[in-house]
Amino acid sequence: VLFLQMGWGDLGAFGEPSKETPNLDQMAAEGMLFLDFYTANPLCSPSRAALLTGRLPIRNGFYTTNAHARNAYTPQNIVGGIPDSEVLLPELLKKAGYTNKIVGKWHLGHRPQFHPLKHGFDEWFGSPNCHFGPYDNKEVPNIPVYRDWEMVGRYYEDFNINRKTGEANLTQIYLQEALDFISRQQASQQPFFLYWAIDATHAPVYASKHFLGTSQRGLYGDAVREIDDSIGKILKHLQKLGISENTFVFFTSDNGAALISAPRQGGSNGRFLCGKQTTFEGGMREPAIAWWPGHIPAGKVSHQLGNVMDLFTTSLSLAGLQPPSDRQIDGIDLLPALLQGQLIDRPIFYYRGNEMMAVRVGLYKAHYWTWSNSWEEYSKGIDFCPGQNVSGVTTHTKEEHTTLPLLFHLGRDPGEKYPISFASTEYQGVMERISNVVQQHQVTMVPGEPQLNVCDKAVMNWSPPGCEKLGKCLKPPESEPTKCIWPH
Amino acid sequence: VLFLQMGWGDLGAFGEPSKETPNLDQMAAEGMLFLDFYTANPLCSPSRAALLTGRLPIRNGFYTTNAHARNAYTPQNIVGGIPDSEVLLPELLKKAGYTNKIVGKWHLGHRPQFHPLKHGFDEWFGSPNCHFGPYDNKEVPNIPVYRDWEMVGRYYEDFNINRKTGEANLTQIYLQEALDFISRQQASQQPFFLYWAIDATHAPVYASKHFLGTSQRGLYGDAVREIDDSIGKILKHLQKLGISENTFVFFTSDNGAALISAPRQGGSNGRFLCGKQTTFEGGMREPAIAWWPGHIPAGKVSHQLGNVMDLFTTSLSLAGLQPPSDRQIDGIDLLPALLQGQLIDRPIFYYRGNEMMAVRVGLYKAHYWTWSNSWEEYSKGIDFCPGQNVSGVTTHTKEEHTTLPLLFHLGRDPGEKYPISFASTEYQGVMERISNVVQQHQVTMVPGEPQLNVCDKAVMNWSPPGCEKLGKCLKPPESEPTKCIWPH
Repeated sequence: VLFLQMGWGDLGAFGEPSKETPNLDQMAAEGMLFLDFYTANPLCSPSRAALLTGRLPIRNGFYTTNAHARNAYTPQNIVGGIPDSEVLLPELLKKAGYTNKIVGKWHLGHRPQFHPLKHGFDEWFGSPNCHFGPYDNKEVPNIPVYRDWEMVGRYYEDFNINRKTGEANLTQIYLQEALDFISRQQASQQPFFLYWAIDATHAPVYASKHFLGTSQRGLYGDAVREIDDSIGKILKHLQKLGISENTFVFFTSDNGAALISAPRQGGSNGRFLCGKQTTFEGGMREPAIAWWPGHIPAGKVSHQLGNVMDLFTTSLSLAGLQPPSDRQIDGIDLLPALLQGQLIDRPIFYYRGNEMMAVRVGLYKAHYWTWSNSWEEYSKGIDFCPGQNVSGVTTHTKEEHTTLPLLFHLGRDPGEKYPISFASTEYQGVMERISNVVQQHQVTMVPGEPQLNVCDKAVMNWSPPGCEKLGKCLKPPESEPTKCIWPH
Repeated sequence: VLFLQMGWGDLGAFGEPSKETPNLDQMAAEGMLFLDFYTANPLCSPSRAALLTGRLPIRNGFYTTNAHARNAYTPQNIVGGIPDSEVLLPELLKKAGYTNKIVGKWHLGHRPQFHPLKHGFDEWFGSPNCHFGPYDNKEVPNIPVYRDWEMVGRYYEDFNINRKTGEANLTQIYLQEALDFISRQQASQQPFFLYWAIDATHAPVYASKHFLGTSQRGLYGDAVREIDDSIGKILKHLQKLGISENTFVFFTSDNGAALISAPRQGGSNGRFLCGKQTTFEGGMREPAIAWWPGHIPAGKVSHQLGNVMDLFTTSLSLAGLQPPSDRQIDGIDLLPALLQGQLIDRPIFYYRGNEMMAVRVGLYKAHYWTWSNSWEEYSKGIDFCPGQNVSGVTTHTKEEHTTLPLLFHLGRDPGEKYPISFASTEYQGVMERISNVVQQHQVTMVPGEPQLNVCDKAVMNWSPPGCEKLGKCLKPPESEPTKCIWPH
């Protein structure tokens, strides 16, 4: 699974006008392009938790109840993380003999009990949080980079990103980690699960020297080119080792492009409305490509409504395993869509924190709540919909539409610009169908214990395991747990 | 040349999310996709005049001086049309033995002296104006359909469009006209020029029964599917006749999608700003595909800045002819780009009526004037940028920036959302280069006599040639020439 922050519109195959992703476009030409694929949340941590548990963040605990409908994630001062009660994909795959590696950003909690090797992974090379910084190590430490159980350095110190030029060789390191792991598994004839969760397209965006200045799109495009190149190398490596027909590869993203960072540090959601942090299409519809030569027919396009949570269930199915039966799993098995071109009827739910904001059924999407962000935030220049303004839709007051949802037809109107008239027969007929789906979803919903409520500066990455050997331990401040503030 | 009203974002190959254009996508896979191709004007008539003359509308007369920077075209009451002094592509091709046919909308004037067969075409099947209507034949007659010199019926009467269902078999008729012409030319071994200028995606949008209801995108999408299917049939016909390697085929559009008619009657410009009638990218950047098996390498992408006027010069080049040397020609010969993948440096000018609104040089675009439409029009609900609002850019007052143009980098920012800071060194350096280009353009500009200034109800299609035989002559009102009113 290749998982990173890119927008629907960042790939040539999805209409990016500079068309600089030849390897991903080739992957699509050899595999299946999903045009209606979603993430489980418009933000990184919750969607990653959803990918690995097959469950909506409101079930697996990756949300907050500190305020209504707020986006929350796992910054350094978060106290929570992935609960032990959750069963992760690598834990299950292990039972079928798989070796599991995560390369890149974990993001499911950085405190010891949340370590990926405690949750099914056998190997890890990467960081626990976003690579913001550089920090001064007084107020906030720089993010560590782990190899397996211990840190091997920190971003900006041992793994530098030149903040002026954007130069960093991290994607090359992450690529090498992937290739080496694949080679070792092939040599030992072991089945494997590789979760390649790199972060070059997440602000602060970076690229290695060879790629700097090569894109029409500036630094962000340079990062995309390097990732595209790396994915080409991973696929070619599988082919060279003769295991491409035994390896299912899926490329997608954890959230829509961060338009607030665009154009220099953020990507594009094409024609879709708004971006990361919102439950409009730009926030949650993702580029997605499945590749499995000899099994998935080449050059096909699927309109199956898909979700990152499906990768949990589909991967289990590929390994001959069943998903846990003691809990609600939201992901479905996509194999019938992948192998036989079937279309499985299922809804897509758009959550923001503890609130179901919208639902998609077929080509229709109903918004039960609309909110981009508050006027207060917006007036500070924080804009999740730059250049876009759909009256009554991209609202800066949180607006409830639960009795009369705003309805869009995403075929005619993928940009969510033309709400369907409440008085139309189309509205009446469709909403009856959607209401049933939503009611069934809501009456059976049992939210998990929220993990993203409490923050504490003392839990930051001051002294990760292994820091002593490197002389990189920092002294944490006094513990002072507080309610985290989630402004949007 | 295949020429019609579709937006950049209407094709699967350009990221349309329902991906319903398999034939055009296949045409791109077998040919060359132009990602930076433009029309000469954000409106139908002027861009068609530019295509056939290789000259900007301000030179060939397809503009108005009734007011500053106004869009004008050839409705039924227009007095003007293509001047005899202009030399059209078919006139020149005739000298090299070509037989020329136009199928569909002419739009260069409907009065006798402007008839396409008086300007180089040998055959015509189609209409002289847009197929608005149905009219009552009292205030306004229905548009005639001509075969060659004479009318054979009228839209809504003899060539019906069901205004309720959108059903019409016109695209099928136009397809048959194209196929028959090609067959005849192949049989007689004559070189030919076919200008297939159909109108199904122009409001009122229509599709034939077989295609109605087949698209995710509603009636507009049905029309696109039928056109896509027709283009597939034309290309296959060329292959079947064994002349595909001798036939250069180019697909593009006369203006950006008419967002004012979207989503049911208008297409999509993808991520580009605004649509038809504007000089933002959405108004003038067009989908474009060149196809010539055995000559143009398959599956290539070109970033050559292209323009519909280039089809004039390129077609002449293919026929071994020179463009006229007694006048300024704006189109360039694209063969080096098509055959050798060269990139020719040239600017793109964005005109609205008599004003140069913007210019593109390399990846930079400078707006010298900004205007979407007036507050007065906008307050009536006429919106050329629905759901889009870029502060200081999509202005409803006409704003002059000639001393300090608004500058955008279309690689980083194809949506024209982030003007480059006036104070930056990037701005200074780029504007110096652009200013030189603009100065050179403007000092040598000699505008032609404007053709779109005078309107008169008496000149409408009351009694086209051939109406007597059909009993379809209508009595024109008294002649009362007035200045045409062009509101935007």
